[in-house]
Amino acid sequence: MRVEDIRYASRFDGITGSAIREIFKLIAQPGMISFAGGNPSPSALPDDVAARIAAQVLREDGKRILQYGATEGYPPFLESLKAYAEQAVGRAVPAVLPVTGSTQAMDLLCKALINPGDAILVEDPSFLGNLQCMRLYQAKLVPVAGDEGGLKLDALEQAMAEHHPKLLYVIPNFQNPTGRTLAADRRPAIAKLAAKYGVVVAEDDPYRDLRYTGEAAPAIKYYDEEGWVVFLGSFSKIISPGMRVGYMAGDAGILRKCTLGKQSSDLHTANLTQAIVDRFLRENLLPDHIARISAAYREQMEAMVKRLESFPAGTRFIRPEGGLFVWVELPEGLDALELLPKCVERRVAYVPGTHFYAFGGHPNTLRLNFSNSTLEQIGEGMEALRAVLEEALR
Amino acid sequence: MRVEDIRYASRFDGITGSAIREIFKLIAQPGMISFAGGNPSPSALPDDVAARIAAQVLREDGKRILQYGATEGYPPFLESLKAYAEQAVGRAVPAVLPVTGSTQAMDLLCKALINPGDAILVEDPSFLGNLQCMRLYQAKLVPVAGDEGGLKLDALEQAMAEHHPKLLYVIPNFQNPTGRTLAADRRPAIAKLAAKYGVVVAEDDPYRDLRYTGEAAPAIKYYDEEGWVVFLGSFSKIISPGMRVGYMAGDAGILRKCTLGKQSSDLHTANLTQAIVDRFLRENLLPDHIARISAAYREQMEAMVKRLESFPAGTRFIRPEGGLFVWVELPEGLDALELLPKCVERRVAYVPGTHFYAFGGHPNTLRLNFSNSTLEQIGEGMEALRAVLEEALR
Repeated sequence: MRVEDIRYASRFDGITGSAIREIFKLIAQPGMISFAGGNPSPSALPDDVAARIAAQVLREDGKRILQYGATEGYPPFLESLKAYAEQAVGRAVPAVLPVTGSTQAMDLLCKALINPGDAILVEDPSFLGNLQCMRLYQAKLVPVAGDEGGLKLDALEQAMAEHHPKLLYVIPNFQNPTGRTLAADRRPAIAKLAAKYGVVVAEDDPYRDLRYTGEAAPAIKYYDEEGWVVFLGSFSKIISPGMRVGYMAGDAGILRKCTLGKQSSDLHTANLTQAIVDRFLRENLLPDHIARISAAYREQMEAMVKRLESFPAGTRFIRPEGGLFVWVELPEGLDALELLPKCVERRVAYVPGTHFYAFGGHPNTLRLNFSNSTLEQIGEGMEALRAVLEEALR
Repeated sequence: MRVEDIRYASRFDGITGSAIREIFKLIAQPGMISFAGGNPSPSALPDDVAARIAAQVLREDGKRILQYGATEGYPPFLESLKAYAEQAVGRAVPAVLPVTGSTQAMDLLCKALINPGDAILVEDPSFLGNLQCMRLYQAKLVPVAGDEGGLKLDALEQAMAEHHPKLLYVIPNFQNPTGRTLAADRRPAIAKLAAKYGVVVAEDDPYRDLRYTGEAAPAIKYYDEEGWVVFLGSFSKIISPGMRVGYMAGDAGILRKCTLGKQSSDLHTANLTQAIVDRFLRENLLPDHIARISAAYREQMEAMVKRLESFPAGTRFIRPEGGLFVWVELPEGLDALELLPKCVERRVAYVPGTHFYAFGGHPNTLRLNFSNSTLEQIGEGMEALRAVLEEALR
């Protein structure tokens, strides 16, 4: 038999790969200004400190770091991580689990909970990488309506009552892709609804430390009395995505099931990257580092927003209070997917918004990232984008 | 609703966690001599070199290493890995994919291929970690009979014809747990059977460089003309398991599907650990390192085997040509599971063989690891084990 006649698993039916990652390849050309992706700025990546710390932890605890570790995590990191997670959610958490990027957290939650056909409630739009993860578990994606304050509570309760979902996936701060922040008064309500209907909430909060304006609201997890909320954290946006260190914090039973799943996923997260993040926490390097990168990101965000203000009439956008993204709605009739090749010709790229909707549509939307471009590139790229739009409207 | 009333996914029905990892915890007491596990010797873990290399790669390519990487792998490593994999299998391979330990390779192959109920052919006994992975994909495990030369070809062909499996899982060299090596003349035959019946072969070969005696036979992949064999390699046993770097080598279509699955599993393997392994390969550090650790492991293996020769009459064991394990059959009537607590009392531990059989049974078998104990510990631990057996036979 020819290997081309191989029978793949049906979970891949209709799965074609993350649109963002395909766009990445398309735009990996010199001179391209990329507002696609969600990469930290190169200047935000602490290579010197990481070099020093990597050598140090390997010299001090190298035999343990290079040996098999526990699926539950590298012991010193478990300690510093628990304190860090408790500070993030504002209350004690029963358990934490280091994972190989918060990508793996979503995978493990689906592995623990989802049978084919089980419903997952999602914001609409939402992070497409995790939507793809859910699709690979053959979940039934149920979009829940939102507004400028994020998920609408009446729509959420109705969806819970109607679809008996296993999981609600929500990005409360500077949401990907919209940049929106979940209103403070909806957070305790979501925790209550989760307990009322027995729905696990995956509270995915990778951007929370990147706030440029406004006041932080407590996490949904802060209001969680019953244990249904699992908080997903990440060091990708504040230290390094290439190290693949994220974590889950929440109910010990749920995390135990995820640990069991992780045994067969990758046995454990690399000890070395856990040890490096541990040292960042123990040396208390994060506050200054975050202050420095936030100041720069804020400038970049302001520069992008300022340019958007002079975009063609009918263009709308959301000014975020933090994070990495600005969400744009083009004048009705324009199609961001169709315009992308024209933009790439002019050396600027973004992600069409349609990819972030569970069922597509919304052709006039797009997501812009500002963290991975200099102020100069933002000026130039936004100018190119504006020119393409004006041409299209002519 | 109380979180205790959570509904987990049915893939976990009957899954209780890896027996080895639970035993690990039981025996994590000071003074315990552990023949359980498959840990490299602490002296085989190159902490000084890793410290030097980690700092070096972060200084030289830190911005790229700390940034998001491609799911396909860290570019310099892809290059050195391809050459390494081709040398391992003895022929050109169309594609390689770095993975987060070869644990992830098995997970991705199951993700790519297995629908619930699909058959996977396995050696009996086989590596229990990967058996658990297959169970989590709700595969139907079909054990195939073997003898001192590994899988029996007639039994294998019959199982392929009868069960239409998606996958055959085989560890050709110094198998885990038996230490057996697949006979040279069965290897081309297995490649042919795979193509005849359209079965993907997962050729899991983490121990191949740890040969202490005898001649290496070519990999099954060496004889693979059609692309059905996927070679799974690992740097866990020859550099460091804690770094979680393994790889897959084979057909580009199959690896593309695994890459798609990996996007949602952990996005990519940590760039830093890939870069460290890359540097090990480029500096050509492996041949000397492997020679050094093999010489030590060989002594440890000989010491263990020598002790086994004076075990009670009726004890049988397999003298391996390499790897990390010695497989023991106790005299009929003894139960390795029952005897384990008695052994732990005497500060020695092993893994009962029954855990390695897809359907259990074989109570009189056990697996001994020699790589993680000194010669003195091997002497002492084997003496304690012998004493427990003699007492049980009295």
